[in-house]
Amino acid sequence: MSKEIISSWDKNAAEWIKVIQNDSIPSRKFTNLAILETIKQLDGDKIVDIGCGEGWLTREMANLGWEATGLDATASLIEEARKNSNQPFEVFTFEDIIEGKNIPNTPFDAAVFNFCLYLKDGLKELLSNTLNQLSKDGVLLIQTLHPYFLIQNDLKFKSQWLSDSWKGLPGNFTDGHSWYARTMEDWLHELNQLENSNFNIREILNDEEKPISLIIKINKI
Amino acid sequence: MSKEIISSWDKNAAEWIKVIQNDSIPSRKFTNLAILETIKQLDGDKIVDIGCGEGWLTREMANLGWEATGLDATASLIEEARKNSNQPFEVFTFEDIIEGKNIPNTPFDAAVFNFCLYLKDGLKELLSNTLNQLSKDGVLLIQTLHPYFLIQNDLKFKSQWLSDSWKGLPGNFTDGHSWYARTMEDWLHELNQLENSNFNIREILNDEEKPISLIIKINKI
Repeated sequence: MSKEIISSWDKNAAEWIKVIQNDSIPSRKFTNLAILETIKQLDGDKIVDIGCGEGWLTREMANLGWEATGLDATASLIEEARKNSNQPFEVFTFEDIIEGKNIPNTPFDAAVFNFCLYLKDGLKELLSNTLNQLSKDGVLLIQTLHPYFLIQNDLKFKSQWLSDSWKGLPGNFTDGHSWYARTMEDWLHELNQLENSNFNIREILNDEEKPISLIIKINKI
Repeated sequence: MSKEIISSWDKNAAEWIKVIQNDSIPSRKFTNLAILETIKQLDGDKIVDIGCGEGWLTREMANLGWEATGLDATASLIEEARKNSNQPFEVFTFEDIIEGKNIPNTPFDAAVFNFCLYLKDGLKELLSNTLNQLSKDGVLLIQTLHPYFLIQNDLKFKSQWLSDSWKGLPGNFTDGHSWYARTMEDWLHELNQLENSNFNIREILNDEEKPISLIIKINKI
């Protein structure tokens, strides 16, 4: 993860904790439920929440009966996560995974990236190296903004860097970091490059029946 | 193909020929170019244009050097196609393919369905049986409306039957047939069911950089 992203999260961690713990992002009503429903349908014992933030999803995983580890690059978020449960939470970066380091408590039956993939380059390596740390028949889940986001925000429908990751969120955020938005074509292109795997994609809708996110399920085969 | 669809095309064939031969559908400027560009990148000698209508694409395939066969369920369109070139054109239905009949002039190196897949049921069998009639490393191309169509037309973002296939087209059409519009999720679900193949998808844009169609490329492996 770039220094820009880590620096932005360091500056905004306290505000983010408030926003998440107050359930302030309206779309999360749909997307939190969607990722939890998807996790409920998985088989396995051990799961890792990569980019766990303050750890709400890692805690929910434990409620569902999983032995769940949470990882995040931002130390103050991991500190907050540790206050709220006795689960293993570790500062660990995407770069650590890309460099081939062993994830704490590996191997896992499932890994989840929930709204934390901001990167353009290195995605294939990040996902491949995560798949490599899963057990046989392991599953990798990604939740990310639906490409329709581009149209809805009057942007050209092409993959592109967007400048402010906090834009539109209900909090007093500063120093937004850039993030790379992908079209569906480019998501499929990335997923087609992963070896020994197949995938399917769910399109998550809000109560106006507009698509808001994708849940990508990659199966190790 | 259902009787409703064949009957609608029988009634509107003359009007369709006029619309196509006058280049009256604005989006075709982009989508015709897109399917031709995709075909140019294929290797092979023999190609089949399934649902060829009055045969414009089959003729263009010949211009690109292919030995091209055109098939359509509507006899009057095949009659028009035969007037305009000496290529093989045959009345042949999706049901013929689904029932496992040999396509005239099979095997092919490539097969194309350009804006003609209206069906809900039987899609897997139609595509599988077409793939079975391709040579080793053969390619099946589909061009279809982009699922964004649903949002653009204020419809719920879910796969659904739409009642009038001619709606919005610049011609005096009557007795529109129904057609089944799919979300991206449901397209991927269908494609994932095809055996011994992989696929990728291009999203074709208009000059406002809005997505208008998908070109699905299925590779036999």
